[in-house]
Amino acid sequence: MTYLFNDPADFATDAVRGLALSHPDHVAVVHGGVVRATQTPQGQPALVIGGGSGHYPAFAGWVGPGMAHGAPCGNVFASPSASQVYSVARNAENGGGVVLGFGNYAGDVLHFGAAAEKLRAEGIDVRIIRVSDDIVSNTPENHRDRRGIAGDLPVFKIAGAAIEAGADLDTAERIAWKANDATRSFGVAFDGCTLPGASEPLFHVEDGQMGVGLGIHGEPGVRDEAIGTADEIASLLVQGVLAEQPERTDGGYQGRAAVIVNGLGTVKYEELFVVYAKVAELLETAGITPVRPEVGEFITSLDMAGLSLSLVFLDDELEQHWLAPVDTPAFHRGAMPALDRPRRETFWEAGADETPQATEESRRVAEQVSDVLALFERVCAREEAELGRIDAIAGDGDHGQGMAYGSKGAAAAARTALQDGAGARTLLVRAGEAWAESAGGTSGALWGGALTAAGGVFADDAGCTARTIVDALDAGIAAVLRLGGAKVGDKTMVDALVPFRARLSEAFTGDNASEAIIEAATTAREAADATADITATLGRARVLGDKSLGTPDPGAISFSILMTELGLHLG
Amino acid sequence: MTYLFNDPADFATDAVRGLALSHPDHVAVVHGGVVRATQTPQGQPALVIGGGSGHYPAFAGWVGPGMAHGAPCGNVFASPSASQVYSVARNAENGGGVVLGFGNYAGDVLHFGAAAEKLRAEGIDVRIIRVSDDIVSNTPENHRDRRGIAGDLPVFKIAGAAIEAGADLDTAERIAWKANDATRSFGVAFDGCTLPGASEPLFHVEDGQMGVGLGIHGEPGVRDEAIGTADEIASLLVQGVLAEQPERTDGGYQGRAAVIVNGLGTVKYEELFVVYAKVAELLETAGITPVRPEVGEFITSLDMAGLSLSLVFLDDELEQHWLAPVDTPAFHRGAMPALDRPRRETFWEAGADETPQATEESRRVAEQVSDVLALFERVCAREEAELGRIDAIAGDGDHGQGMAYGSKGAAAAARTALQDGAGARTLLVRAGEAWAESAGGTSGALWGGALTAAGGVFADDAGCTARTIVDALDAGIAAVLRLGGAKVGDKTMVDALVPFRARLSEAFTGDNASEAIIEAATTAREAADATADITATLGRARVLGDKSLGTPDPGAISFSILMTELGLHLG
Repeated sequence: MTYLFNDPADFATDAVRGLALSHPDHVAVVHGGVVRATQTPQGQPALVIGGGSGHYPAFAGWVGPGMAHGAPCGNVFASPSASQVYSVARNAENGGGVVLGFGNYAGDVLHFGAAAEKLRAEGIDVRIIRVSDDIVSNTPENHRDRRGIAGDLPVFKIAGAAIEAGADLDTAERIAWKANDATRSFGVAFDGCTLPGASEPLFHVEDGQMGVGLGIHGEPGVRDEAIGTADEIASLLVQGVLAEQPERTDGGYQGRAAVIVNGLGTVKYEELFVVYAKVAELLETAGITPVRPEVGEFITSLDMAGLSLSLVFLDDELEQHWLAPVDTPAFHRGAMPALDRPRRETFWEAGADETPQATEESRRVAEQVSDVLALFERVCAREEAELGRIDAIAGDGDHGQGMAYGSKGAAAAARTALQDGAGARTLLVRAGEAWAESAGGTSGALWGGALTAAGGVFADDAGCTARTIVDALDAGIAAVLRLGGAKVGDKTMVDALVPFRARLSEAFTGDNASEAIIEAATTAREAADATADITATLGRARVLGDKSLGTPDPGAISFSILMTELGLHLG
Repeated sequence: MTYLFNDPADFATDAVRGLALSHPDHVAVVHGGVVRATQTPQGQPALVIGGGSGHYPAFAGWVGPGMAHGAPCGNVFASPSASQVYSVARNAENGGGVVLGFGNYAGDVLHFGAAAEKLRAEGIDVRIIRVSDDIVSNTPENHRDRRGIAGDLPVFKIAGAAIEAGADLDTAERIAWKANDATRSFGVAFDGCTLPGASEPLFHVEDGQMGVGLGIHGEPGVRDEAIGTADEIASLLVQGVLAEQPERTDGGYQGRAAVIVNGLGTVKYEELFVVYAKVAELLETAGITPVRPEVGEFITSLDMAGLSLSLVFLDDELEQHWLAPVDTPAFHRGAMPALDRPRRETFWEAGADETPQATEESRRVAEQVSDVLALFERVCAREEAELGRIDAIAGDGDHGQGMAYGSKGAAAAARTALQDGAGARTLLVRAGEAWAESAGGTSGALWGGALTAAGGVFADDAGCTARTIVDALDAGIAAVLRLGGAKVGDKTMVDALVPFRARLSEAFTGDNASEAIIEAATTAREAADATADITATLGRARVLGDKSLGTPDPGAISFSILMTELGLHLG
């Protein structure tokens, strides 16, 4: 049960406020989460880590010298929105670029990714680390596609220490991925957790059973087994993780491993120590030396009953950063050198940015872009009912409304930006943000990210050629592919995007943007119609599976319609 | 539920082993618990804190520089035994004496007290701090008789910091009591906890209700109320604690308070932060400044669902020690100065002590004491059945057996000590320890403590006069009064002890030990018989209450019998 809350809708923000009030020397509240309360060195990369709430100490409890620079905090078990991530990253960034770190979940990939698009369009270098340590969630070959669980702790600890030690953005990114690739976790659950205000847990495990391969968002295990003794469970976990122990090499892994026994919430400390006693024995038998093991609650899942074991197969570089001092609200190690860390006095606030200076030429382009967005608004309004009808057959029926709201918000933001004297880049970035906020949902985030990425191709101090338009479309499509994670055949808008992009590239000869887009849009429409023959496995229609057969994907349809209209408009 | 255990009987020791394996730089396992893994300065007082297991991070998680020197670890929710406390204290002591700190519970008072008797008899200065912060468990006037809950954290943190800062034993004791007297706590529980291996919680709170005034050993609240919002619960707790806010004075409390929001186990971090956000607001309204608040799990109660609020009303001295650096497995603050703390290589082990040198004179006294213990063994064997019969009427019937086992163990230990060449003091200390271990239970601990304290009156290098005998009896009785906590009229052996002591003091004129003891024993027997008119409220018979009317207290009877035999033996 979750017992202590006021309005459940305010739970996450109330908790962030309480955290900052109780740790005023460590963290300060900004829109969307927390950042360090102290100043960071100019030019130091900012490590911004996050995910949903309900996992404390992850992630806000790890903000401080030697670890993270900021943490966007979503609602319970829900990714922070792109605007939350953006706000925290903007506040944390101090001239050295941003590393965005999060567990590999679709929602986080989407929203952190959308924030990254915006930051990049504004000229900030951003690197993305998706933690993927859970061995049950994909094959060893595809380990970067696994979900992230307790591996968040060592990956972010090591990345933060590397940055504290002077790593630049390239180095920080390299070390963080190296830490992730060296980390394996495996867990079991004994019972589920209950969201604030809910009366029933997300799942139950039968008495005397345990779910093997738990998630950290209330996902049950991948199989049930009879519950074992602490020693038996320790053996199961150690065997699972050691199945992926790498070869020992000179200068690489040589049998030293960081070890984390993580409690999910209701399993208590003494129980975790009982398990660790056996884990230590088994590791010794396997010739592995635990390096500064951590036994406790690090990545929780509200009141879920369960635990996981993580090993990081260390080389000298990873070990050095694993052992380095750290000082955050919930994770401490050693004695942080008493550097001069004056209190931070100013913070960035949403809406506080001045509109960047734009040339007359760029402002004329911006007017044309605004016209296109107004066109999209009209077309989406016209198609709203039909798109909704298609979506309702196998989805939740909100695609027409989402496109209508999103395009309307984007067009309005574009008009305001024009009045403020914005150039083409700034106008598209703001329009992209408005589309995502106005539409909500996955397709809103993807369209918003696409507009933002397209904006990055334009400039506030240059004009526009046919090449610019085609490049902007390409950048928008690339953003959707990055953010959404879908592949051709998944019955999503990607089924229309990929053939569109290929055809556009072939058809464009340097000055025929209108014709090339119309031609590519025709290809896209054919591909969209052909999605009627696919059973949905991803995206909006996955829940209803077979019911989607015979109906095309509405996102693919809406994309092809808008591209056709764009081609005609440019003619 | 407790999910992870092997043999439930090994749960506490397995957990201690896992703790030490995961924190080898902080703690080392000794018989009965843990001590610091690093050497401490010669002459520094040792802070030894403890209680049952199931409360981690309390108490073993707080062993390290700036806080405790050692922690005896009892079974789940059970006091460590006197021999566990003694072993940890012997290992922690380094020439500066010992502060024993524990929550004010009968079992802990008894067992820590018995260990203190032995340490003192061996010449080690020991001070005792009973934490008593829980406002629901007694009146404000009798606040030192309350039970200890989350106040353990600030009291031991402050005492440990004072010692780290150079306090001697007197100063450490003074500051620890000052911290305790300045601390008030109040809690609520939403559901009970389940012991390892048990299938049912110790208690349940009805859905939608909360138990106000929880304990930390699975005790339910003192009353049930409808569960409130987080804000309402915060208000209830703040009001309760602030009802005992002291006056503000120059040089004393001036509105600054350490604040602790402690989760009992299943209430999660985000919930505690939601509560703290309101607590901070209410304290501000009350003109109180929170000083380095702590929000998290500090004194848990296995998987109990509940929380408490503690305030320490600070003066400058308490604040200085509350803020000082600390570095333990589970509690960290600031940066500990990097002093030279070499690893400790040697530990004391039970049975490892050489028998101290004794003079011929003292060894002759030891022979006489051994004869008395042999007499006690014979008398207890003779009276075993009758004492058991009396005890069975309103108790658990084991008093006869306990006295027989205890006196037999003591007599055997005395014979072994004699063979080893022990003097009178050493012989009695060993006999006391053996009595407690052989008999078990409360009366065993009290008789053991009495023998040990009596031993402290003798010497290994001196003889014995009539005065020595009478003083030793007086010291033994004083120990029982200290350890047992019973008063005259509670229907315990104290009802015989107190009149015996008074009569002995009057009747003894300097050389008539035998006559005076016989006279006092007659008074004791009359008082013991008179306990038949009392209804038991404490001790072995309290559970059955009224059934005890008409039967005397068997502990009072056995004491008066043994004193009569002693008087005759000395004649």
